[in-house]
Amino acid sequence: MSETRERSAEKIACDHRSGAGHLVIIGGNEDRVQEKVILRRFVELTCAPDPKIVVLTAASSFHEEVAEVYQRAFEALGVARCSALAVHSREDAGHPEVVEAILTADGVFMTGGDQRKLLALIGGTATYTAMHRAFTERGTCIAGTSAGASAMSAHMIAEGQGDIHPEKGVVSFAAGLGFLQRAVVDQHFSERRRLGRLLAVVAQNPTLLGIGVDEDTALVVERGSGFEVVGDGAVTLVDGRQMSSNFLDIGEREFIELLNVRLHLLPAGASYAHRAGACSDAQVCRELTPTLHEIVDILSSNETVS
Amino acid sequence: MSETRERSAEKIACDHRSGAGHLVIIGGNEDRVQEKVILRRFVELTCAPDPKIVVLTAASSFHEEVAEVYQRAFEALGVARCSALAVHSREDAGHPEVVEAILTADGVFMTGGDQRKLLALIGGTATYTAMHRAFTERGTCIAGTSAGASAMSAHMIAEGQGDIHPEKGVVSFAAGLGFLQRAVVDQHFSERRRLGRLLAVVAQNPTLLGIGVDEDTALVVERGSGFEVVGDGAVTLVDGRQMSSNFLDIGEREFIELLNVRLHLLPAGASYAHRAGACSDAQVCRELTPTLHEIVDILSSNETVS
Repeated sequence: MSETRERSAEKIACDHRSGAGHLVIIGGNEDRVQEKVILRRFVELTCAPDPKIVVLTAASSFHEEVAEVYQRAFEALGVARCSALAVHSREDAGHPEVVEAILTADGVFMTGGDQRKLLALIGGTATYTAMHRAFTERGTCIAGTSAGASAMSAHMIAEGQGDIHPEKGVVSFAAGLGFLQRAVVDQHFSERRRLGRLLAVVAQNPTLLGIGVDEDTALVVERGSGFEVVGDGAVTLVDGRQMSSNFLDIGEREFIELLNVRLHLLPAGASYAHRAGACSDAQVCRELTPTLHEIVDILSSNETVS
Repeated sequence: MSETRERSAEKIACDHRSGAGHLVIIGGNEDRVQEKVILRRFVELTCAPDPKIVVLTAASSFHEEVAEVYQRAFEALGVARCSALAVHSREDAGHPEVVEAILTADGVFMTGGDQRKLLALIGGTATYTAMHRAFTERGTCIAGTSAGASAMSAHMIAEGQGDIHPEKGVVSFAAGLGFLQRAVVDQHFSERRRLGRLLAVVAQNPTLLGIGVDEDTALVVERGSGFEVVGDGAVTLVDGRQMSSNFLDIGEREFIELLNVRLHLLPAGASYAHRAGACSDAQVCRELTPTLHEIVDILSSNETVS
């Protein structure tokens, strides 16, 4: 692919950026050493010729190791300015240097680990506020993988065993970072057989669109415009608004009966946008049908109800 | 449970039998040695005080071993008259003794193995005709497990790898026994992660309702009346009539994009019927909503279109 064409996907996404940045929601185990397709897309979506990227490892218990992996990957992708934020406490999360790093970043990348740890450390701190400011005002690209992806929604899956069948009461929620208001994210989706768990979440929380992201796959959201699925697997969307279930009639740990769940399955490779020709040559360009339009609205929404 | 109550589920199902027998569609690996819940329900649904059961092992390559397992299981359930049909060739399938055994049976049980072998041996023979006559005219209960379950539909999944994601061209069809005209059956469903495969089947064949039956689980169909889910797991139904897909635009082995698939998930334990009080105490009785009514119609249908 020629350099001109390579630029065009990036250029289109960046030129049309509505103000807010992109969200890159990654299902975990993304390739960090070979083609690095997802990380590459993240770098493009910083929309800066010489992007400054910060890596937030607060979800992880292995700050040094994880930081090094990502710094090496971004360096290999031509990023000259990449640093890992040392956030090990809420005090760190309030530190002016950390806050400044985020406010001046073109991209913030949240690693995997435990989403509860991530929120416990940064939730409600100046780091949290800075991330939202950067995203909304500077167009900073916010990415999260694995726990970092789950953390992106307002209603966050904190933990949950999840059988292959949806069971009542096995998934617990907590307050996440709120970059998605009307959806809930699960990751390592197909690989860890989490459809049952996501169906249980949606049965219990029918206001939320369930998003299941596979490993080495990313859902890229461009607020108000469209979305893409990048990488190797697929994104599964579960819409329970028309569903009926026996959720209220059963006890804890019992299997849930569900009727009329709407399921969408989106394999990597397509870009869904209002704009014709808004894709790179490597992508399949799909214009928005009413269903896809509705999905864009839900993913873009700043509010809890449309 | 008292004997009077135990009789009532059977009695209700048998008293209200519309003429045709019940279908018992089993996902494989049903319990044959302990509680034998599914096999027990099959025996009840023969609706005979001293039922005559024939076991058809034609799908299997291990006739003696398989026959013995089932004969032992039915004997333990109090069945005094159980025989295994020795059908090793199409000549056997046309043999008057085999045909007579089926025409006088209260239940016919098709074991697992390879559904293509089963159809190759009995498809279009007098055995095949006899099974349909017995089912329609005598109310004989027809059961099939694993390959035997797949074989029950008119459009039968003959083989197919099936990734966790639906791929074009990985599933092949053949003509099955035709006890279900408007649905297609897959088995070992959750255990072998076959949702992707069933979605691919429905994407390619949107006239058919996809039925995925888990191991040790049975979908029991009472034509024109209702259905039950018995056993340990669940039945997944996939309705693609309102779906859109990119099926026509992609090549073989490529992942299929699907929008607006309707999914129903029915765990074991419930009985869905027109009639109030048509359940045993062990079951949850569910009256038919419009969606459930539609499902009953599809499962009961003798025709390829409503």
